[in-house]
Amino acid sequence: MNQDYIKLDNWSIIEEGFNPKRVKSSESLFSIGNGAMGQRANFEEHYSGETFQGSYVAGVYYPDKTRVGWWKNGYPEYFAKVLNAPNWIGINVEINGEQLDLFTCKKVENFRRELNMKEGWLSRSFIATLKDGITVEVNAKRFLSLDLEEVGAIQYQIKPLNEDAEIIFQPYLDSGITNEDTNWDDKFWDTRNVSHKNHQAFIEAKTMKTDFHTCTFMESKIYIDEKSLIIEPKFKADATYASFCYKHSVKQNETYTIHKFGGYVVDRNHEKSKLVTVAKSVLKSATKKGFNTLLEDQKKAWDLIWNMSDITISGDVKAQQGIRFNIFQLNQTYLGRDSRLNIGPKGFTGEKYGGSTYWDTEAYCIPFYMATKNQNVARTLLEYRYNHLEKAIENAQKLGFKNGAALYPMVTMNGEECHNEWEITFEEIHRNGAIAFAIYNYCRYTDDYSYIPEKGLEVLIGIARFWHQRANFSTAKNKYVILGVTGPNEYENNVNNNWYTNYLAQWCINYALENIGKVEEEYASDFTRIMNKVKLSTLELAEWKAVADNMYFPFSEKHNVYLQQDGFLDKELITVADLDKSQRPINQKWSWDHILRSPYIKQADVLQGFYFFEDHFTEEELERHFDFYEPFTVHESSLSPCVHSIQAAKLGKMEQAYEFYLRTSRLDLDDYNKEVHEGLHITSMAGTWMSIVEGFGGMRVKDNKLSFTPKIPKQWDAYSFKVNFRNQILKVEVCQSDTKFELEGNTELQILVNNLPVTITPNSLITV
Amino acid sequence: MNQDYIKLDNWSIIEEGFNPKRVKSSESLFSIGNGAMGQRANFEEHYSGETFQGSYVAGVYYPDKTRVGWWKNGYPEYFAKVLNAPNWIGINVEINGEQLDLFTCKKVENFRRELNMKEGWLSRSFIATLKDGITVEVNAKRFLSLDLEEVGAIQYQIKPLNEDAEIIFQPYLDSGITNEDTNWDDKFWDTRNVSHKNHQAFIEAKTMKTDFHTCTFMESKIYIDEKSLIIEPKFKADATYASFCYKHSVKQNETYTIHKFGGYVVDRNHEKSKLVTVAKSVLKSATKKGFNTLLEDQKKAWDLIWNMSDITISGDVKAQQGIRFNIFQLNQTYLGRDSRLNIGPKGFTGEKYGGSTYWDTEAYCIPFYMATKNQNVARTLLEYRYNHLEKAIENAQKLGFKNGAALYPMVTMNGEECHNEWEITFEEIHRNGAIAFAIYNYCRYTDDYSYIPEKGLEVLIGIARFWHQRANFSTAKNKYVILGVTGPNEYENNVNNNWYTNYLAQWCINYALENIGKVEEEYASDFTRIMNKVKLSTLELAEWKAVADNMYFPFSEKHNVYLQQDGFLDKELITVADLDKSQRPINQKWSWDHILRSPYIKQADVLQGFYFFEDHFTEEELERHFDFYEPFTVHESSLSPCVHSIQAAKLGKMEQAYEFYLRTSRLDLDDYNKEVHEGLHITSMAGTWMSIVEGFGGMRVKDNKLSFTPKIPKQWDAYSFKVNFRNQILKVEVCQSDTKFELEGNTELQILVNNLPVTITPNSLITV
Repeated sequence: MNQDYIKLDNWSIIEEGFNPKRVKSSESLFSIGNGAMGQRANFEEHYSGETFQGSYVAGVYYPDKTRVGWWKNGYPEYFAKVLNAPNWIGINVEINGEQLDLFTCKKVENFRRELNMKEGWLSRSFIATLKDGITVEVNAKRFLSLDLEEVGAIQYQIKPLNEDAEIIFQPYLDSGITNEDTNWDDKFWDTRNVSHKNHQAFIEAKTMKTDFHTCTFMESKIYIDEKSLIIEPKFKADATYASFCYKHSVKQNETYTIHKFGGYVVDRNHEKSKLVTVAKSVLKSATKKGFNTLLEDQKKAWDLIWNMSDITISGDVKAQQGIRFNIFQLNQTYLGRDSRLNIGPKGFTGEKYGGSTYWDTEAYCIPFYMATKNQNVARTLLEYRYNHLEKAIENAQKLGFKNGAALYPMVTMNGEECHNEWEITFEEIHRNGAIAFAIYNYCRYTDDYSYIPEKGLEVLIGIARFWHQRANFSTAKNKYVILGVTGPNEYENNVNNNWYTNYLAQWCINYALENIGKVEEEYASDFTRIMNKVKLSTLELAEWKAVADNMYFPFSEKHNVYLQQDGFLDKELITVADLDKSQRPINQKWSWDHILRSPYIKQADVLQGFYFFEDHFTEEELERHFDFYEPFTVHESSLSPCVHSIQAAKLGKMEQAYEFYLRTSRLDLDDYNKEVHEGLHITSMAGTWMSIVEGFGGMRVKDNKLSFTPKIPKQWDAYSFKVNFRNQILKVEVCQSDTKFELEGNTELQILVNNLPVTITPNSLITV
Repeated sequence: MNQDYIKLDNWSIIEEGFNPKRVKSSESLFSIGNGAMGQRANFEEHYSGETFQGSYVAGVYYPDKTRVGWWKNGYPEYFAKVLNAPNWIGINVEINGEQLDLFTCKKVENFRRELNMKEGWLSRSFIATLKDGITVEVNAKRFLSLDLEEVGAIQYQIKPLNEDAEIIFQPYLDSGITNEDTNWDDKFWDTRNVSHKNHQAFIEAKTMKTDFHTCTFMESKIYIDEKSLIIEPKFKADATYASFCYKHSVKQNETYTIHKFGGYVVDRNHEKSKLVTVAKSVLKSATKKGFNTLLEDQKKAWDLIWNMSDITISGDVKAQQGIRFNIFQLNQTYLGRDSRLNIGPKGFTGEKYGGSTYWDTEAYCIPFYMATKNQNVARTLLEYRYNHLEKAIENAQKLGFKNGAALYPMVTMNGEECHNEWEITFEEIHRNGAIAFAIYNYCRYTDDYSYIPEKGLEVLIGIARFWHQRANFSTAKNKYVILGVTGPNEYENNVNNNWYTNYLAQWCINYALENIGKVEEEYASDFTRIMNKVKLSTLELAEWKAVADNMYFPFSEKHNVYLQQDGFLDKELITVADLDKSQRPINQKWSWDHILRSPYIKQADVLQGFYFFEDHFTEEELERHFDFYEPFTVHESSLSPCVHSIQAAKLGKMEQAYEFYLRTSRLDLDDYNKEVHEGLHITSMAGTWMSIVEGFGGMRVKDNKLSFTPKIPKQWDAYSFKVNFRNQILKVEVCQSDTKFELEGNTELQILVNNLPVTITPNSLITV
């Protein structure tokens, strides 16, 4: 059974009752972030039970020396680890000389945690009875400010319930932290200086090797029953630690409160030498506003986000909570403000997988950000890859490619490959295609072609060159083939002619050729600039075309389907339904060879191609392929159910679509894969959004217009979402009986609903 | 260019002149061993330059916790490391208070090292001038006794040439040693006790985890100009070290000599608690004989070995030295005395690869030991696998097989798999076939069928069960297929229908079926015993047969050859000759994906199958396959040239055969692969022997008779070898003009020479 301790609620994630076994899972689920930093829901006060401490600063990583059993030529020297950064949330609490620690105190009652997604804060409350008999009520609330993105604020309140007590708040900074994920137990942080002034403290630390300089800071204010209290704290420090000690004799039923403001400033945004000065000014802004005003600002900021990106579902709290959790976490992870950042698979909720950028960004995340933010955010994500083009060319060179062929990395922080599993690193090359597809998808959605002559075309050329060189001519097949790849379905390795990869390769070349032509005709000066740089010959273009025109696609006459790869039909084709349940999940039960020779599919592969290029295939073809492949799909990747939900909805298989929807939207809340303690699956959350908007809503861009084919699961009364389409906001509400459209904007919008044209007038409600 | 500093000599490996850059390579090349232990040619006296210290005790290993980048289900928890054992050869030398150290002394002249293969000893001599101006002549000689296999002896002599000198010999034992190959820098040895009595010292140490108890011991005797000298030495010790200090004022031109006896006793052969007592008695035997008598015994023992196993080549010193080096090293590594030991790929010359047993033993080594020792030695090697059958069944179970299916490990020390690279560990399953083939090969050569009813049949059944379960029926091909394997050519991974693997699988099942029938008919009580144990049903046998009868073999009509695997012809078929030389060796120049999708073959794969089962194919078929595959073969495995030499000789391609012979026989001496500093390639040395006996000599067993088709490279005047065939020794000498046969034995031997019957009478010379 999946876990089910999270209370159902439309707007909040709520846990009631204290269970040490759930602490690590809840630390993931209740994570908070603001795009610039994020943290797991670790307790402020000391906790001696099992915990996974994590506070992460966007763009700060460590190149950990590669660890493998058997070295293969071409492996990168390091893997970019997501770094646990210095702790600034810590507040040790002493009550009559006894440390408050939920793991060791005599009794914990009324424990409640809430992640309020509407307003963007995390709270925790409990009544604890300590070993010496004193009972205290604790209320803690914290958030990472969306407005002041370098700052977080904590309100920590404690009230002795049965007697007076001498209570110490000891807010601290600690850079003596470690990573859970480390290859060689290297030291990741080098603390340069610990300092303080009045109620402020600072730890300057830099990362080893990467030399990211950071200043972690804090300042606290103390209150009794909301009345400010002046205490001159004792300051204590060592080489990696700074704390203040606020001691006070608190009367029974008085509330002793600390407001702690803290966070990070980093040299990505400020001069190295001025980090402490900047930190002081950040603290000044934060404390001037104070906790309550900052919190009000936070609510307003989240209100703006929700106003644009919320999806409502009525009649199904489980589904409603699921989609909001996904949208909330995506916005906590990435807000599109900084072109140097990206969307890591675990966001700010854990260390696993490392790196910040996978093909997930292009294949799953861009549609969400494009529709719920604006085209600049999507363009920023495209530019991230443009900025890494030189590194992608270098990466391809390391693998023997030449002449400007570009292979984007499987996993990266800065454009350099850092993954080291040959069957993935060297062979899961379809990632290159998703990056080209995202350019196409962006242009299609935004109608902003300017990106291609300015930047995109160079990326498309580098990618086309790669595919041209990576394919080879098979005299046996009299076609071009692509040998030795791993498709999106990572339960096949080193296969020949993965259909999805071959299809993407062909498309990438054709799309590059098409755009070279268009830019030549319409953007002459860009064309000249680019051609001077890339030096494309007509011979090379002819060779590209030969590859694209003669690409081989494995096909079964018998089943009338494209084959996932050569030899797929040699497998023992037992469906998942007929597979003994005790054997699942196969990635935990079977050895790797067993998985590889089985027909089971980890995530959509051929169907992923049908998703990207649905216009190239009839619905009947889609159905045939869905019916052929879905029965072999075990969905053991977080990225699988969303695509299947979309395809099932398109085919009118609404029960299946709904099941896949629940699976994708509540993957972490219900912990389908028994791994939520390691962190959340952030990138697949964008797939959840797609499964409603593109799946149930059927949203597409067709003939340069938004198009919908609205469907609704029978479990729901209605659902609604908004999309920003070319700077107009369209709200769509789908009920069992009809669909309503409402436009915020200035000009009429022509859309298609069930393939019929509909005109939407600004600020009026259209029902179809 | 390959290295060429080894002097050409028929019987010795000789290095002249001291070059610190060659020290590690020479430490490998001059290694000595006696089957029970072995050591690299490290200097006795302190050496501060680059060195790779190694002393190894057969059967003593450490299960080092597995290190991988990405864990796969089914990986073993540990890798059995070859362990550097406590040092007993060390003799620090001080001359007038200055330590003798070839790396730092002022001048080294007349440096000469000799590994005398005829007599089985290693010597080193040099004249060194120390910093303070004193010049000494040093002569050192050592060997590991074949007669007293727990003991080695060193004679170390020093003569001051230009003045009197106070000289200290400080023989020591040291268990504070480390491994070069370690995953986590674990401590491998736990020293339990350091003790001494009179001139003897002992270090008792046990390996961590495996708890192998050992006692390393030493005793020394001192001489001046061969006259015994009584010195009461000072004893020094710490927790992992014991030394004696023999100080003497040596006159100019006097020779100061130490005889050091040392070695190991281990609890595989003795009671744990009595190791020191045993060591004392071993030392007593050794010192009683003394260095010179032990050395005489050593010469006699090697004489016996050479008398049986020598191969002479006249007219080609390079070739002669090569084959003797191979035969010598094989005998140093394994003598067939202990059924718990096996033939590690690096023998006692390095740590690389770990484990002691690979499929090399069955595929390459057994023929050598069978023909140059006797059938008991070969049978002992077969029994090694019989003794590991239960572990092979457990290993298969871990990978999802059942019902007694056995998968022998890729690498092992004790029957448990310890390799951890999925494409090898889980997929290089052809190893299972070589183990069955060795049983067949043994019976064919020895005519001793008794092994099969006694032990072999159970192994054959476990292996047949594995193949039956590992194959699956392809409805597309209407045949049984074997998916996801790695063949002997490790430059292909996870391929479908590797021809060699499929062929072996079919053969294994048929051979098991044939022997089940034979044992049922001829060995009723064995049959009953075995069937009670394995519980074979007729249904299961029918299923086996269905698999064998309907096995799929990839074949190209166009080329009229079996294909190495499905899809081989989709590759870009550029031959090695047309490959830019700068790209080689491809395993150093190319990334792994590049290698995998290339057509290049690391070692014989289809041709390995044609070697095992040559009777199944015509010579014309062999030639066609040789001509098709050899041009794509890069021979980047030590196991490749020997098989190609044999096949080329068979096809009369004598120039190629000779080239391959040189490459296999001088692989280490000439350091073709630039890695000799890591140790020698022991198992492929047996392939070198095969390339003369089976390749040039054309020896086979046909119709229960020895058969020869003698050929001779034009570079040679003559060559000769001996084989023990069914307890008769046949000497074969091949000249350019004719071939001579001579039989040591009692009964006439019918043989075939060029397919014509020849009768050899004992003790008379027959010329054909």
